Amino acid sequence: MLTYSERVAVSSEQRKACLALALDAAEHAGAAALPFFRTGASVDNKAGEAEMGRGFDPVTEADRAAETVIRERIKGAFPEHGLLGEEFGHQEGNGLTWVIDPIDGTRGFVTGQLHWGVLLGLFDGQAPVLGVLHQPFTGETFFGSGGRAGYRHAGEERALRVRPCAALADAALAATTPRMFKSGEERAAFDRVDGAVRFTRFGGDCYNYALLAMGCLDLVVEASLQPYDIQALIPIVRGAGGVITTWSGGDPCMGGTAVAAGDARVHEEALHLLNQ
Amino acid sequence: MLTYSERVAVSSEQRKACLALALDAAEHAGAAALPFFRTGASVDNKAGEAEMGRGFDPVTEADRAAETVIRERIKGAFPEHGLLGEEFGHQEGNGLTWVIDPIDGTRGFVTGQLHWGVLLGLFDGQAPVLGVLHQPFTGETFFGSGGRAGYRHAGEERALRVRPCAALADAALAATTPRMFKSGEERAAFDRVDGAVRFTRFGGDCYNYALLAMGCLDLVVEASLQPYDIQALIPIVRGAGGVITTWSGGDPCMGGTAVAAGDARVHEEALHLLNQ
Repeated sequence: MLTYSERVAVSSEQRKACLALALDAAEHAGAAALPFFRTGASVDNKAGEAEMGRGFDPVTEADRAAETVIRERIKGAFPEHGLLGEEFGHQEGNGLTWVIDPIDGTRGFVTGQLHWGVLLGLFDGQAPVLGVLHQPFTGETFFGSGGRAGYRHAGEERALRVRPCAALADAALAATTPRMFKSGEERAAFDRVDGAVRFTRFGGDCYNYALLAMGCLDLVVEASLQPYDIQALIPIVRGAGGVITTWSGGDPCMGGTAVAAGDARVHEEALHLLNQ
Repeated sequence: MLTYSERVAVSSEQRKACLALALDAAEHAGAAALPFFRTGASVDNKAGEAEMGRGFDPVTEADRAAETVIRERIKGAFPEHGLLGEEFGHQEGNGLTWVIDPIDGTRGFVTGQLHWGVLLGLFDGQAPVLGVLHQPFTGETFFGSGGRAGYRHAGEERALRVRPCAALADAALAATTPRMFKSGEERAAFDRVDGAVRFTRFGGDCYNYALLAMGCLDLVVEASLQPYDIQALIPIVRGAGGVITTWSGGDPCMGGTAVAAGDARVHEEALHLLNQ
């Protein structure tokens, strides 16, 4: 479990080295996951189970393969750092902790859709200081570090920047699924925002935050998040000039609820409606 | 408007020539649309409007650019054929009609997501005889013709084949958005199916039908469809061995409702629940 502790100071030089490792590790993890993508096997493929003497779950196999690659690379480069991954749990370190979601958007992955990715963030005890989202099928990488965010695709790199949006009524909103709002209260709060925006798009998982950072979406409102679902995305959103908090305006890095906006005016309006 | 007429016989040779044209036209249309993807402009970008003296809507520009390319190529190769496109309307022909959705999944397109594509089908007066879905960002093409379906990506081509799924309880269901079920009755019918499957994934548009053909999804249940939303996808689903009808079990090619399944047993169970 990830908990707050004293902040570990990370120099600009260290952060650069960590970002370089994160980009490399996420790319290799994506390559390890990709062979399990669109295998055509059902999640609980009975034939596969009989044949292989155990349940064959392509997304679990992909998750494990990807997380193993990331852990090995981090241990090789920074053996003193801690690790927290969805598949292989927590390993304490020097106060800096790598937070790994080997495949965020597992339902997208398992249905052959494209809005999933490898997430990797570095938590300094108080906040994630850098984050990477890599999509191996499209070969895209979104990253944030040191107050900047960038995008790599097809051998090119460019800065990510949110777009202005003056009012919630003009905003394009995204959320992975209306099912993520578990309580009636959460659902009602989401519905108030949903009713006030220009349009809402479901589906997306981690991709929605990256597209907000890219200036393609104005607002993401979600719930039921784990720390590893959101940690890597926070530096990407903030590095691109966006705002991200919990629904009560607090620190989003431990998961739960999240509201991310490209424009602070939209964030403020959304917060107001979420807390009515 | 597309209406039924006498079926125009299409020889196997003609169909091959038409498929070759469709694949080529969809690819070039995608290339024409791609420069408008992720432009960062809001759909109703006020700055753009002021600057350019008119509303600049990237998806409309992309739609028009893509449909123009397709119309020009078809007119060049088959001037006797009819045309029905989302942007430039209907032009009568010899009874064979090309049905064009230059960008299916416009909300996906405009938010930078990846589940959209160029759709192109050929209607013989009774049914679409071939269909193509091309996604230019990922460079993927799904196509169906003559009882077969295929997939092209990264210079390789392979057959598409649905996967077996014995029961609705094991099925992965997709629908673009719960908002597409406009009446209470439609929504209740969808909810009955939704409550009976393994899980439901929202988002996807045309991509869901292609992923069903690929054996990654078991069921797609949708409503509020136009003929050009579904025509191109029918030969892909059927060519891969899938079943697709309206919710009442009828011909889906004029749009309205659609229920597509990779396995006829899942289709039958879904139809039963939709018509309770």
